[in-house]
Amino acid sequence: MKRKFLHGGDYNPEQWLAHPDVLKKDLELFKKAKINTVTLGVFSWSVLEPEEGHYEFGWLEDIINSLHQEEIQVILATPSGARPKWLADKYPEVLRVGEDRRRSLFGGRHNHCYTSPVYREKIGAMNEALSMRFGEHPAVKMWHISNEYGGECHCELCQDAFRAWLRERYQSIDELNEKWCTTFWSHRYQSFEQVESPSSIGETGLHALNLNWRRFVTSRTKDFLEHEIRAIKKGGSQLPVTTNLMYSFTDVNYDELAQSIDVVSWDSYPLWHKREDIEIATDTGFWHDYMRSLKNKPFLLMESCPTSTNWQSVSKLKKPGLLEAASLQGIGHGADSVLYFQMRQSRGSFEKFHGAVIDHSGRDDTRVFKEVSKIGEDLEKISLISEGVTGAQVALVYDVENRWALEDAKGPRNRGMGYMELLLKMYRSLKRKGLNVDIISSTRDISAYQLVAIPMLYLLRESFAQQIEEYVKEGGSVLQTYWSGVVDEDDLCYLGDGPHLLTEVLGVRRKEIDGLYDWEENHFQPAADGFLKKTYRCNRLCEIVEVGSAKRLMEYQDDFYKGEAAVTCNDYGQGKAYYVAADVEESFYDDLFGHILEEKKIKRLVAKSIPEGLTVDSRVNADAEYVFLQNYNKKDLDIGQLKLEGELLLGESLSKIKRYETLIIKKRL
Amino acid sequence: MKRKFLHGGDYNPEQWLAHPDVLKKDLELFKKAKINTVTLGVFSWSVLEPEEGHYEFGWLEDIINSLHQEEIQVILATPSGARPKWLADKYPEVLRVGEDRRRSLFGGRHNHCYTSPVYREKIGAMNEALSMRFGEHPAVKMWHISNEYGGECHCELCQDAFRAWLRERYQSIDELNEKWCTTFWSHRYQSFEQVESPSSIGETGLHALNLNWRRFVTSRTKDFLEHEIRAIKKGGSQLPVTTNLMYSFTDVNYDELAQSIDVVSWDSYPLWHKREDIEIATDTGFWHDYMRSLKNKPFLLMESCPTSTNWQSVSKLKKPGLLEAASLQGIGHGADSVLYFQMRQSRGSFEKFHGAVIDHSGRDDTRVFKEVSKIGEDLEKISLISEGVTGAQVALVYDVENRWALEDAKGPRNRGMGYMELLLKMYRSLKRKGLNVDIISSTRDISAYQLVAIPMLYLLRESFAQQIEEYVKEGGSVLQTYWSGVVDEDDLCYLGDGPHLLTEVLGVRRKEIDGLYDWEENHFQPAADGFLKKTYRCNRLCEIVEVGSAKRLMEYQDDFYKGEAAVTCNDYGQGKAYYVAADVEESFYDDLFGHILEEKKIKRLVAKSIPEGLTVDSRVNADAEYVFLQNYNKKDLDIGQLKLEGELLLGESLSKIKRYETLIIKKRL
Amino acid sequence: MKRKFLHGGDYNPEQWLAHPDVLKKDLELFKKAKINTVTLGVFSWSVLEPEEGHYEFGWLEDIINSLHQEEIQVILATPSGARPKWLADKYPEVLRVGEDRRRSLFGGRHNHCYTSPVYREKIGAMNEALSMRFGEHPAVKMWHISNEYGGECHCELCQDAFRAWLRERYQSIDELNEKWCTTFWSHRYQSFEQVESPSSIGETGLHALNLNWRRFVTSRTKDFLEHEIRAIKKGGSQLPVTTNLMYSFTDVNYDELAQSIDVVSWDSYPLWHKREDIEIATDTGFWHDYMRSLKNKPFLLMESCPTSTNWQSVSKLKKPGLLEAASLQGIGHGADSVLYFQMRQSRGSFEKFHGAVIDHSGRDDTRVFKEVSKIGEDLEKISLISEGVTGAQVALVYDVENRWALEDAKGPRNRGMGYMELLLKMYRSLKRKGLNVDIISSTRDISAYQLVAIPMLYLLRESFAQQIEEYVKEGGSVLQTYWSGVVDEDDLCYLGDGPHLLTEVLGVRRKEIDGLYDWEENHFQPAADGFLKKTYRCNRLCEIVEVGSAKRLMEYQDDFYKGEAAVTCNDYGQGKAYYVAADVEESFYDDLFGHILEEKKIKRLVAKSIPEGLTVDSRVNADAEYVFLQNYNKKDLDIGQLKLEGELLLGESLSKIKRYETLIIKKRL
Repeated sequence: MKRKFLHGGDYNPEQWLAHPDVLKKDLELFKKAKINTVTLGVFSWSVLEPEEGHYEFGWLEDIINSLHQEEIQVILATPSGARPKWLADKYPEVLRVGEDRRRSLFGGRHNHCYTSPVYREKIGAMNEALSMRFGEHPAVKMWHISNEYGGECHCELCQDAFRAWLRERYQSIDELNEKWCTTFWSHRYQSFEQVESPSSIGETGLHALNLNWRRFVTSRTKDFLEHEIRAIKKGGSQLPVTTNLMYSFTDVNYDELAQSIDVVSWDSYPLWHKREDIEIATDTGFWHDYMRSLKNKPFLLMESCPTSTNWQSVSKLKKPGLLEAASLQGIGHGADSVLYFQMRQSRGSFEKFHGAVIDHSGRDDTRVFKEVSKIGEDLEKISLISEGVTGAQVALVYDVENRWALEDAKGPRNRGMGYMELLLKMYRSLKRKGLNVDIISSTRDISAYQLVAIPMLYLLRESFAQQIEEYVKEGGSVLQTYWSGVVDEDDLCYLGDGPHLLTEVLGVRRKEIDGLYDWEENHFQPAADGFLKKTYRCNRLCEIVEVGSAKRLMEYQDDFYKGEAAVTCNDYGQGKAYYVAADVEESFYDDLFGHILEEKKIKRLVAKSIPEGLTVDSRVNADAEYVFLQNYNKKDLDIGQLKLEGELLLGESLSKIKRYETLIIKKRL
Repeated sequence: MKRKFLHGGDYNPEQWLAHPDVLKKDLELFKKAKINTVTLGVFSWSVLEPEEGHYEFGWLEDIINSLHQEEIQVILATPSGARPKWLADKYPEVLRVGEDRRRSLFGGRHNHCYTSPVYREKIGAMNEALSMRFGEHPAVKMWHISNEYGGECHCELCQDAFRAWLRERYQSIDELNEKWCTTFWSHRYQSFEQVESPSSIGETGLHALNLNWRRFVTSRTKDFLEHEIRAIKKGGSQLPVTTNLMYSFTDVNYDELAQSIDVVSWDSYPLWHKREDIEIATDTGFWHDYMRSLKNKPFLLMESCPTSTNWQSVSKLKKPGLLEAASLQGIGHGADSVLYFQMRQSRGSFEKFHGAVIDHSGRDDTRVFKEVSKIGEDLEKISLISEGVTGAQVALVYDVENRWALEDAKGPRNRGMGYMELLLKMYRSLKRKGLNVDIISSTRDISAYQLVAIPMLYLLRESFAQQIEEYVKEGGSVLQTYWSGVVDEDDLCYLGDGPHLLTEVLGVRRKEIDGLYDWEENHFQPAADGFLKKTYRCNRLCEIVEVGSAKRLMEYQDDFYKGEAAVTCNDYGQGKAYYVAADVEESFYDDLFGHILEEKKIKRLVAKSIPEGLTVDSRVNADAEYVFLQNYNKKDLDIGQLKLEGELLLGESLSKIKRYETLIIKKRL
Repeated sequence: MKRKFLHGGDYNPEQWLAHPDVLKKDLELFKKAKINTVTLGVFSWSVLEPEEGHYEFGWLEDIINSLHQEEIQVILATPSGARPKWLADKYPEVLRVGEDRRRSLFGGRHNHCYTSPVYREKIGAMNEALSMRFGEHPAVKMWHISNEYGGECHCELCQDAFRAWLRERYQSIDELNEKWCTTFWSHRYQSFEQVESPSSIGETGLHALNLNWRRFVTSRTKDFLEHEIRAIKKGGSQLPVTTNLMYSFTDVNYDELAQSIDVVSWDSYPLWHKREDIEIATDTGFWHDYMRSLKNKPFLLMESCPTSTNWQSVSKLKKPGLLEAASLQGIGHGADSVLYFQMRQSRGSFEKFHGAVIDHSGRDDTRVFKEVSKIGEDLEKISLISEGVTGAQVALVYDVENRWALEDAKGPRNRGMGYMELLLKMYRSLKRKGLNVDIISSTRDISAYQLVAIPMLYLLRESFAQQIEEYVKEGGSVLQTYWSGVVDEDDLCYLGDGPHLLTEVLGVRRKEIDGLYDWEENHFQPAADGFLKKTYRCNRLCEIVEVGSAKRLMEYQDDFYKGEAAVTCNDYGQGKAYYVAADVEESFYDDLFGHILEEKKIKRLVAKSIPEGLTVDSRVNADAEYVFLQNYNKKDLDIGQLKLEGELLLGESLSKIKRYETLIIKKRL
């Protein structure tokens, strides 16, 4: 199979079986819009198995055959995202129990118990049957396991599984009591049987319980995912599997889920036009990079909306050209597809006004249809880029377990710690420098990077502390911030000086941390010998540190800690360890990163400084590097000053870029 | 009986049976304030039947006799609005089950199950007994069934009733599945038995379920109301019946309830002085007109507060004169009564600080008492107007079923569609032109009107679409807006071009609809040949339409749809169909309606343009038309320029109107 | 035992039993910081009784012995604040049932049922055993019963207890029906068995039920407290007992609880630096005075935070010096201790970031540790003041039962009546005059005061009305405000003129009360002969009164009640009764109190007018009066103009006071 990008999306023909004219028209329109892939079967269970044990796959086979005839390939989903009514009515155990210990009624979707033996049995049989019937159909290319896994169940079956999981982790209840500090408020357990999941009508303040419950939920979800995959394999299919992940999602740790699938895919629904386009674009870029970094491989954009969604507070139309830009942005960050939700709008129920390639009018002269067709053309034009990888010299550490622990903690700021804000601040600053950036967890190897930025690593694994030390000793540059190295993997506070295990490499020691109200601020001012010469505003959190072997770069300007160190740099081994003690404004990072990049001679994708509103990313394959430039400003942009060189794979000019235009420059390696 | 207006209100002497002095004093004060009617028995069940099966009606008979002696007539209520404790304790089924499937405890009021056979049996026996005992008492003039029906119950009895109601409506479960689009998210039902009412712990996103649940709740409430009426009839009374409706209420569809009663009555509690008086007055006028239009007959103002209420965020005193104005406003809109809640303040419990004619001081020299007495005098002075009707040439379509569906839909704007705001915008504009306005649902006949304004008729009945077409063809003028003709009666989207069935009469076709954030706006600017020459701001929602046979009147000024049509007019048959594509500011309607009225030569109540803050309404009887003018400005107003003519039935001058004054001008027909 | 102040706080060594080095280090650090007292055993149940019936007291004895060796005394707590898991698992009845009738799961703390016979049996046995083992240990000086009693339980056991309590109070159900006005909305009870506690899924609007439920909860809590004390006594200990109360707490009425304990103690956690320091200081002073006034005796500051807490929205560091000021402020208001929560920070769970004398670093060179040590020195320096009392000529009536009723009522302002705001307004004004102030309920004797301010006494006991009349007649000055004398002890409205029983002594009669929206205001302007000559803004609530024998001092300036009396003074007997009809700004009270103090020649602690940001308090013992001055301004303050005299017990100069400095001046009597 020659290289190509997938173009298409979710298609639910089962809603139109009584309308053969519609199904016929769909195929016609698909071809017109250069659709080469559709996802079938998401939420189709009640049609695939209308009565218990009675499978009806004929309609699906007909559809797949028709698609195949038109050379449209199929990603086939397992239908576990929503259960049929008969299943819930006959086996109530498949419905989730909430944290308040009430069992849900039938309704919605994505809310079955991941432990229920009945649910596992039923979906296992279904998946196996689907695999047997369609696993070798030439149109079927990949399995799409379930849909947007998430949520949790607190039923007795899950409670038992949680207890077993804890026993596995801690071996003895004494160990658990010690690690969880249960003597506090007399919460000591005498046995694992006494443990219950967190609940708003029970315990919510035992942070180690909360953290391990989240880990268990991830483990449970992963176990269910693997159960689904095993059934597919048992049915005989050896096709690759994926499951669609989501934007800034904290129900489960995707680092774990990614290990069980062959290909990472995700559903991207940015709130375009709610804020400035460039802000939304950079924020979306962060999540593209996160998804790519999960496996350091190309990923799939599994869902995106061709026009306005229907679930946001305001269903804003995408302005002309924006859909093309957003679609190609994914490609620039490492996606091998542009897939939409949905191909044809449903006539009723919750998502009937969610944007679609084909809307209720059924027309092919809608603005959306024409824009989709244009993207189909683009993708054919640039197909040689597909399967290309992304090389990054810089990594940003975003750790979901750390986020769980950090945001659950009580103190030093329950009004918002600003973890994601800090990550995005650093990310935007790095991207403005013209760099590809990997977003990785603290379980990953950092030795290959030139620079690693590690914001607020409250939960510090000892192994990662050792890695940091080793990394800097060997010449790496690290940028660590306030509120790092506070607790261990069970949210138990480290004793002694902090940041734990890092005081030597950083050359500073935390004394106190001050929370600032939303209306308060402090400032950084230059220290005597520092290379940073401006003043910067800081907010939210200010640490007061004792400086050891490090050099002071900046100091606080206000309050009783005026004159105390705010930014330091420690020469350690062959490398340097920077420390930022407070939540400082973004331009500070522009200046600090600028200094580090120069010092370390880190190469940028574009030689010159990047104008506001322009994004730059790249992919590489055996032949060349492909640099993507996009203009998210309200106006066309003159970019002559960037002195770009290379062959234009997409776009018209190396010196000018229109609003929402994408330039792709091929540079021979 | 000679014509007269009812003056009085809710009276609960059962709270004072141990205080005969109070009861005696009440009668004295009633006479002093020219009270001629009181409503008895609302919430009296626990005194009427203190133990199961043991009726105590003696005290009520005594009260009615005393009132009769003083020539005060009685509206007698059935006591179903609140049940006795023994009833709830012995038969828990009478208590409602919430949407979260938890049964309520005893408490509050208005919260019994409308299905419960026990509740129906008990209230049936009670009503029959009341009817037998008091149905022919000369003081008793009308039955007041229950109180402010509303709410819903999700108990198993109601679920069964819902299923039976659905079976009646859809005949087969396949038909329901098709109409409800249940294939979406695998929600297909195999039988009616599987259907459950909407629930926050189950299904809330199946819009057709939600809509039909609301219809069922209306049907259930109506059925209960009719059950109560039947019991009254069974007891032998043939007196007219009413039930008191409420302000902007969406629990039930009053169009349906109105069919079961002889007289419409409602409880009016505007938040006077929270915003400008004229705004509150016009808003209240809308609901008076709605209540009158339900039967196109005089109605009763059943409750109103003589001073501050106690349940609002702030209990604001009515400023001197406002009560009189508000009371006469009802008369001007077609009410045949001024009735208050309440005659005497209760000493304890929830409403002890709700305003009353007689307060805790028991005095007759309070400001309130004096104002009430003045209204008593007014009503005697203008009694010949009672039973007069209201003639309107203009109708505004407000459809409760449409409102349910429109506001429940997901997209295009979940932050508020602005349906009521749009209705009120149009209403205010029409009233400022000096017109009486009928407020009707889309099940009503529109052929007799000169102009029909139809805002956002998202749920379009095919029969009404045909009516519109016919109406315009025959010479009627229609003003239709954006987001009309989207779904059918089951909230299933129409396929093909929209507004469904109206593209021909309107001469336009909807292409897209854009949601605007609260902080966004666009503008209308004049089209080349349009007669509208100003610029207007628009917000919330902007439709982009393709113009067919219609003429462009205005265009958008901003965003990517700049230059697209925003207002059009289509000549169709003998009539004209206007289309407004976006949520535009009020002054636009002033200008557009002004043009239409002139073109159609629609006669206004006042020849000249009406000054800000002045309201104009009228009633007609066999002899004359009675024009009401009221001044809701902070100051007296010179109205010489209106050149009013006729006999002053109330008020002192045709050229000047004091703050809160009401002028009533009699014009011979 | 010679006089001394207690210095120390909560200590949980049971969290560190596996770390003997930590325990050893603690003792060392305690001595260094001049700690002389620690509280043990709060939340220690699961360690004291790890299995049912199996007590392990050895570790506690070891700790107490070690402390004793270092001359550190012990306040020993009963552990009922949190139950062990085994207790909740075996006896679910010990867990509370919420107002929504759902039983809690195990978790949190302070949430056991106060009625449960099992819980009473288990804690009784525990307390008795603790008393036997430690009641005569020379280090143990006081019992600390449970922790921060609060909350409520709605289980069937509590419902039965509530019914019995009601039967005791009302004797017959008819009496209850009459007092509660249950005829309203047909809520009449046939028997006490029918009564249920208030519930959001049942009854919330029967105010008399709500009020009596609150009284019952207080009675239940008190009964449980006394049960705990009895068990201690049964164990043989005769040591004094306390229980720690809390800041502005309305779950229970502390006036009642205070009767069952020997010493009042409370936990003070002001939100320092969230608003201006002087505002926080005065607010905290109010609660110190309230706690002292409960018994008119020195009290204990049982808990306070040495640095930032962890449960506030923002964990703000205390600025250098503030801790010392806040600690000595308590002493100035009558505290005989400075005790912290907590001595050593826990490693995990909910409060691991709550400030402590010894933090996770374990260092003795932290800023906090040094500040605590400094306070230890201060306390030794001023130890002769301990046990000194506070003399006040002025009382402010703050009545918790009144607050319950006032804030629960519907009308005249459900958006906030401003009761606490009014109290604090008056308190701040009185403190700025240099006065000690007692804060008392309306069940207390007022005859000894020179001036009594009685804001918004909505619930007026007849006995207190008589006291007021007597008090004024005998020459006292009273300041009464709007919305007083409205209901009796069962929240039943008084009939006839109001303020009930006070119209004669006040010389005015309430006619109406107007609620003002947050954005509205009115003004007071001088009446013709009044001595107040300025204009003041008023908000929230404005009463319109008829003036009888009183003299008008001020009138309204705006709205329809312009010119009506706003402030009056009635000469009655030998005294004067002032009436303030509206919620007027604070400076009004400065002027009115200024006038009254002068007229009554009430002596102030400082002769001259007190500069902004300075606080003044005093304590007296047999030898001398000790005047405390504290500076809560951002800067040092020159106070030469105060011409202070006396011996400086703390501080350096009588003419200058540094930021956060405390001057203590000894004045021989």
